[in-house]
Formats: sequence, structure tokens, C-alpha cells
Amino acid sequence: MLENISSVKVSGGWHKQYTHSSQSTHCTMRFAVFLPPGASEANKVPVLYWLSGLTCTDENFMQKAGAFNKAAELGIAIVAPDTSPRGENVPNEDSYDFAQGAGFYVNATQAPYNTHFNMYDYVVRELPALIEQHFPVTSTKAISGHSMGGHGALMVALKNPTAFVSASAFSPIVNPIECPWGVKAFTGYLGNDKALWAQYDSCELMKNAEQANYLPMLVSQGDADGFLQEQLKPENLVAIADKKGYPLTLEMQAGYDHSYFFISSFIDQHLLFHHQFLTA
Amino acid sequence: MLENISSVKVSGGWHKQYTHSSQSTHCTMRFAVFLPPGASEANKVPVLYWLSGLTCTDENFMQKAGAFNKAAELGIAIVAPDTSPRGENVPNEDSYDFAQGAGFYVNATQAPYNTHFNMYDYVVRELPALIEQHFPVTSTKAISGHSMGGHGALMVALKNPTAFVSASAFSPIVNPIECPWGVKAFTGYLGNDKALWAQYDSCELMKNAEQANYLPMLVSQGDADGFLQEQLKPENLVAIADKKGYPLTLEMQAGYDHSYFFISSFIDQHLLFHHQFLTA
Repeated sequence: MLENISSVKVSGGWHKQYTHSSQSTHCTMRFAVFLPPGASEANKVPVLYWLSGLTCTDENFMQKAGAFNKAAELGIAIVAPDTSPRGENVPNEDSYDFAQGAGFYVNATQAPYNTHFNMYDYVVRELPALIEQHFPVTSTKAISGHSMGGHGALMVALKNPTAFVSASAFSPIVNPIECPWGVKAFTGYLGNDKALWAQYDSCELMKNAEQANYLPMLVSQGDADGFLQEQLKPENLVAIADKKGYPLTLEMQAGYDHSYFFISSFIDQHLLFHHQFLTA
Repeated sequence: MLENISSVKVSGGWHKQYTHSSQSTHCTMRFAVFLPPGASEANKVPVLYWLSGLTCTDENFMQKAGAFNKAAELGIAIVAPDTSPRGENVPNEDSYDFAQGAGFYVNATQAPYNTHFNMYDYVVRELPALIEQHFPVTSTKAISGHSMGGHGALMVALKNPTAFVSASAFSPIVNPIECPWGVKAFTGYLGNDKALWAQYDSCELMKNAEQANYLPMLVSQGDADGFLQEQLKPENLVAIADKKGYPLTLEMQAGYDHSYFFISSFIDQHLLFHHQFLTA
């Protein structure tokens, strides 16, 4: 059962927030949806899923990206989940990059995280099923995200290439098994089984991608991003894409940092990128 | 002396925040400026001043309005001051609608507010002088704002019709002397002198405006705004404009509320409105 907790008109459409009891994360989850003008049972629209970064909730993208005017014009719904399970009963740490607000879009295998931290199942299965049941949308989906959510978007798309028509990311962690944020999170959620880590690593997944399952992928990265060298490493993914002929475009943007000011500068371009595949 | 405290590239231009010691408010003030791409001493650009609403700082508009892509395209700088003096030495109350975060853009006459709460002088004189001294801008100015800042924008423009080429507002308090927010603030800052109150009331100011000083004015108002009837009363201003032939356009927008989702839906329209006068 979805509980509607806010409903605000924007760009001719609607921004709405909902809570529900999640079977994947065993807690109450909140998500937000933007419905473009004219979306109805008689005129269903495709969906862009947006996965946010460390410390974010469903609200950051919706309030700061400036995406709705273009999404309204293109007729695209946008769904933004939270970045982790939350609540008094959910394990937490005094840390911005692990536990609440930092689910990393994996299914945890390690106690005490494995009860609630199943964000992979949540964003891949539970949430899209809910969205397609309750909102005037088609099953045509694209996926995007930022930083930790950029990792999530690329990884989810690579693992489910027939579920999405396209994937994009801003400033993604493309190789979590090779960076401090990823190593910390994967150790905590997945233990020491490096074979399991590889199942959530976009570089490892792309290495094993079959050409029939390639999907169009766009990555935008600011070259003044303080996390670029140590955490993000987009060149690692580009090297694999180049070798395999994977249709990945990396756009390095001079002078931009890791913030939502960067996202708001190029979100229209990402929406146009996805639109061509969502409506193909 | 300006101290630069942040500098982030956005929409091809720059978002920068500064602090300085204010002669008007006798405390450290923070403001933000957006400089469009290409602004330079050899290519100065006009400025839109943005005054924010209750509880806001310089950050709300800059993070949530989604204004920069269009402002970059049009070549308009945007300057957003804080909404009041702040700091340990500045009087405050446990109230969202008076004292810190709620300066109402007046010069206070009443103790203990009259030392610091001189936001009228700050936004009309001190800030534009600083901006024109330190940034690659012309002296051509427009002004806009939201709610309390909509009051500020219209009131400042009506009192200084030759300083600004155009004025606009989202969901403004147009008649503060006749609504609870305004009566509380004006009593606190200005005492019981109703003649003084009238000098900061857009309706009273428009009644006395001379036709030679009329300037183009655009007001956007959502009809689902919960503050519309009790606090905002745009019809009071429209009645005066109609009677006097003042060039005010009120656009009532069906279904929109008082939030930044409303502003982000129509900010491009306001930028285009100002652009025609800023470049005339």
C-alpha cells in the first residue's frame, strides 16, 4: 500500500512523494515521482529512474536538478528512490559513506546489514513493479544517477540490459572494487568475497557484457571534481568500453565539480539522450 | 572587502558566494552571485537582483530555482542577498516570520532592531554598489523575489523606479500593512507609525506612483497557494494598477502552490520578461 505524503504541481505536471512498507528492505521506504503533464491511463509515459548519491534522499534531485521543464516537454516520468533503508530499527553508523544514506544499491550478505540493506532488489524489482502498478507509466525504462547513484545506474543497467533502454550517470563511481568508498561499502555489506563484489562493479560487469546486450550509455564528469582521481575513475570504464566496442560516451566537462550545479547544467542533455531511446 | 567563500561552475558560468562586513546592517552579510558565461570587464552584463522569502538565505533560489541555464543563454547575472542580518549579536526571536531570516527589506526604527535590520539600505544601496564595483556588470538592473522577497522586489522598484528597468515577483506579499505577516513585521521593525508603514507597502506606493515613473511589472501567483487569501492578496495591487493604468501583469497559475517547484516552473518566463528591458 502506497501512502501519498505530498503532491505539488510543477512544470505543468506533478511531484508526489509516497511511503510504503518494503518487502526488500523490511522498513518504510519513501520515494518521489514526477509525472509530466498529460500522463494518464490513456496516455502512459516512459520512466527515468534516478539513483542519488551518498547522504541523499529522494529529495535532492527533485529539488536541485532543474529537470522538470525538460521532462515535461519530453513526456518522461522520473522516479527517485531513497538511497538506503532508514529508521530506528535499521543499522546505522556515524559515517556519511556507509549504512543509512549509503546503501550502494547492493543486496547485503553480512549481518547486521543483510536484513534491510537490499537496495538492489528494491530498485530493480520492487520499486518498478510498484510504479507500473500505481502510476500511468509504460514498462519502458531508462536509468541515471549521481556518484554512488551513478554506480547504481550503470551497474543495474549492465546487470539488467533488457529491462532498460539506456543508462547514464553524472560523476559515477564506475569501479567500486578499486576505490575507498566502494571497498568500504562492499566489505561492510558483502564481506570479503571478491567474486561477489565483482557482481556489483560496472567495470567487471562491462568486461563480461555480451554484444547483443549492449545498451547506450552516457557519462558526464566534471574535471574539477575533487573525487575524480581517488573515487570515480571513469577512465577505467572507458578503457573497457573502447576495447569491447561498448557504446559508452564519456563527456569530460571542463571546470565542473561534483555538485548539483553540475547536474543542473547537463540534465537536459541527459533527458534528451534517454528520450531518443524511450520513444524509439 | 569581499571574501569569496565558494566558487562553482554552473551552466557555463559561475556561482560564487561572498561575505563582507556591511555598513547598513553592522554585521557580516553573505550573498551569492551567478555570472553568465562570457561576462568580463570587456563584456559587462546586466543584473537581476533576487530577494528571497521568509526563512531563506542566499542559497534557496540559487539551488532550487533552476534559473541558470536560461540566465546563461540570456547573459544575465543574478545576485541573491540573504533575507536579514544574522549572527550572535543580532537580535532574534523563536519565530520564522520575524527577526533573523525575516528582515522584510525595511530600515527598522525600533530598538533593538534598528541597529542591524536595515535591509532596505542594504539591498537598494550597499549591495548594488558593491556588485558594480567588484563584478563585470553594468548598472542596468532588474529585481524579482518570492513571497516576503516579492514584497521586497515590488516595493523597492516602486520606491526606486529609475534604478530598475523592470520588476517581477512570485507569490508576493503586495499589501503588508493589511496582512498578518506584514503587520507583525512592521509593528516590530517600525513601531506604530502607520505613515511609515505605508512607505514600504507596494499598494500604497503604487497609489502614489507618477505615470512617468511606471515600470513594467510581472507577478506570478499559484491559485493553490495556501497563503493566497490571508497573506498575499495580489488582487489588492491589481485593483490599483487597473485604476491607474499601471503596467502590471498578474498571471494566476492554476494548481500551483507557494514552493520553489512553482518558481522553477516559471522562472524562465520571468527571465525572458526582464531580458527585454535589460537589453533595451
